[in-house]
Parts: sequence; structure tokens; C-alpha cells
Amino acid sequence: MTGTLFTLGMGPGDPELVTMKAARLLATTPIVAYFAKAGQRGHARSIADGYIGPGVEELRFDYPMTTEVSHQDGRYVDAMAACYAAASDSIAERLERGDDVALICEGDPFFYGSSMYLFDRLRDRFPMEIVPGVLGMSGCWAEARLPMTYGDDVLSVLPGTMAEADLRRHLAGTDAAVIMKLGRNLPKVRRALARTGHLVRAMYVERGTMKDAVVMRLADKADDCAPYFAIVLVPGWEGRS
Amino acid sequence: MTGTLFTLGMGPGDPELVTMKAARLLATTPIVAYFAKAGQRGHARSIADGYIGPGVEELRFDYPMTTEVSHQDGRYVDAMAACYAAASDSIAERLERGDDVALICEGDPFFYGSSMYLFDRLRDRFPMEIVPGVLGMSGCWAEARLPMTYGDDVLSVLPGTMAEADLRRHLAGTDAAVIMKLGRNLPKVRRALARTGHLVRAMYVERGTMKDAVVMRLADKADDCAPYFAIVLVPGWEGRS
Repeated sequence: MTGTLFTLGMGPGDPELVTMKAARLLATTPIVAYFAKAGQRGHARSIADGYIGPGVEELRFDYPMTTEVSHQDGRYVDAMAACYAAASDSIAERLERGDDVALICEGDPFFYGSSMYLFDRLRDRFPMEIVPGVLGMSGCWAEARLPMTYGDDVLSVLPGTMAEADLRRHLAGTDAAVIMKLGRNLPKVRRALARTGHLVRAMYVERGTMKDAVVMRLADKADDCAPYFAIVLVPGWEGRS
Repeated sequence: MTGTLFTLGMGPGDPELVTMKAARLLATTPIVAYFAKAGQRGHARSIADGYIGPGVEELRFDYPMTTEVSHQDGRYVDAMAACYAAASDSIAERLERGDDVALICEGDPFFYGSSMYLFDRLRDRFPMEIVPGVLGMSGCWAEARLPMTYGDDVLSVLPGTMAEADLRRHLAGTDAAVIMKLGRNLPKVRRALARTGHLVRAMYVERGTMKDAVVMRLADKADDCAPYFAIVLVPGWEGRS
């Protein structure tokens, strides 16, 4: 009998936005696995803190790099593939000996999640259960008190890493937009929003649902400093009454 | 002292996917409000069943219509505006006398939610708190075991009500897509997916995370019968390793 891998979405940041199901599985699974940036505690691990039972074995996987080089760079691709392979092997070893493992992820596991790379590697070998979580962007639009999509609005989720011309093309064709992965891309994102007429409605959010959340109109943000996980929200308007 | 309006996302359907925060607020708020289709129990109300305390007052608002006429039809627009105005008045009456109200919504309140129309009407008059929930589409991609967005993928959320040419244009320019509001739009959606090369990867999901969920490749679906709330998922692939 092999163990089951539970992949648990931990939601956007407020520990109370964990689902009942994720809380139950965290309390009853003997091994908890997670990714974290080297030298930091890890966002998913922090959210899970109050839910992890005593005596649990923790499997921590350090990202070899995060935003130091472009994600198209061969060094990034190779280092991440090695990281995912080692994490998969470590989890597989526990599942093979019959232990269940809970892999915890910020937000939702299948929405830009590192856990997807482990799922792809392990899905044919072990029983898996995916527990969806509240998306980071849901936490941000709730924090900003910003209804996002009305009626027949189109929503586009765009990485800030895109070329400016591509960003402009997507923004020109959508009603609502979420722009993720800001960091050093913020000046480019700001220009693309201005050129497509969306800047006036764009909200800037850091750490939505957390105690130190930041919400402001992007047009009011005086600098171009943004963490990688800050996002910009452009609300839709179709059917607004 | 007026009451507070708590707008609570109830998640995709499995009651265990309610957040700890929504569960706490449901258990302690004396009035629970919700929308439902006439003659049906209401999806949000069903999910909340085990969380509502004894002796709670229930405010039920029947939708005057759902998919009987086009949402661009003046009769639909007028009837819905009257429904939202009456619901706002009913909730405002309780808040004015100092009672808190929990407005419950399937999925997330600010993602195609009826609650947004009440928020827009009441936000300047009363204290409001928005509790984000697990999106219906997250429940569907977890049910389908389908990692959706990788690396720098673009995700487009599209209403199936769009014209076929618009659907094709959006599908041609995106990596991943969620197509909502299927119902009678399914044949058109299927054609647009086929013409843009996405049909081979498209999954069809009904009632994700519920006991009677349906998951299949859209290409394997032999008929064109789909409920309005069924969705199609096209997973991204950028950076897949």
C-alpha cells in the first residue's frame, strides 16, 4: 500500500482563508512538504503554521533561484528541473513506504503552482488528491474592495514578464485584467496600461488579505518599486448597473 | 450603530471547501441572505447548510429569470435591476437596525457574482467585509486533475455567450482558457475550439467538487447538452517540463 499525495491550496495569505478540507488534511497527515525561497520561511509554510499537527515531519525544498535570472534562461530552466526532480524523489520515497504526504502551496495548486511539476511527475505512480484553494488574485480584489468581472466580461490573466507590445495587445482586447509577476516589470506594465486607457482604473495590490497589505490606485503610486508577487487589477464593467 | 454586511464566498460546491473564515462568520451572524433560482434551493444556500446556526433569519431573493431571455434583452436588464434594488433594500433595512447580515455566494463574491450589484449599492452606506472564496473554475480544474497555468502562460476567462468570431480571436491569442456559461452555446464553443486547435486539449466539467461531478474530454462528449454552469478548460503549456 503506497501513501497518498494531498496537494493543498493554502489561499492568499490570511490563515483563516484556508479551507476546512485543507485544515483537516493538514492536521492528520504525518508529513508536510513545501517549497520556499532560500533563507526565507516560505509563504505556504507560514500560512499553514497553526494547522500543522505536533510531531509532523517537514520536507522543505529550497528554490535554487527565483528572480535572479530570466525564466527563459537555460540556467534557470535546468536548476528548476533539478529542484523538481529532487523534490519528487523525496516525496516518492515517503509515499512508497506507505506514508501520506501533504504538499502545501500558496493560493491554488493548479494556478501557476510549483506543485504542478511534481503532480506531472508523480500522477501515474501514486494516488493523488488536489484540494483547490482561494487564489491570490481573489484575495487581492477582496482586499481592494474591487468587484472584478460582471455579466459577460472577459478576464485576462497576464504575466508582467510579457513584451510590452503583447501586453498592450491583450489589454486592448479585454474587459478586465490581472497582471501578475510585477517586480522590475512595473514601468513597462504601467506604460501598457496607459497606452490602452486602463491606467485610470488600475489598482495596485501587495500582500492581499495579510496584515501588511498595500492597496492603491496604480496612478497614485509614486515609485516603480514592486515585489515580484504584487499584482495589478483592472476591473471589468460590462453590465454594471 | 449600523450592522456590517459580510459577503462570503462559499466555494465551488463541496461544503468542505468553505474557508475557516466564512464558516466562522456564518455560525455567528444572525441573518443569512442569498439569491436562488425560483423553485430551486439555491446553490450557495445548499453549500452553507451545515454552517448556518439555529434560529437564523433567512433572506431569500428569487432571480426573476436566469437564462430564459438574452442578458442583453431589456426585459432581463430591467427585471434584474429591480431584483437587485429590492434585495439591497431588504438587506439595508436589517443593517440600519443594527443587525449584521451574511450574504452568501457560490464561488467568489467578486468574480461574476450577483453580490457585486449589492456591494455597489450599499458600499457607501454600511460597513462591508468581503471574504474571498475558492472559484468555481478552481474546483473544476482540481476535479479534472488538470494543471492549468504554467510559468508565463496567459489565461483568458471567456463567456460562452460571445460571438464565435470573438471566441476564436481570444482563443487564438491565449495559452490557457476557461469558457464559462456554456448551456446552449456549446456547439459554437466547440467550433471555435476546433478552429483554433484547442479542441484536442479541452476538458468539459460539470459540478466540479460535487458528488455528481462530470469530467470528460470535450472531444469525447457525444451530445451538445450542457447546463449553463458547466465549463470548458483548456490547459496552458508554457514552461512545462
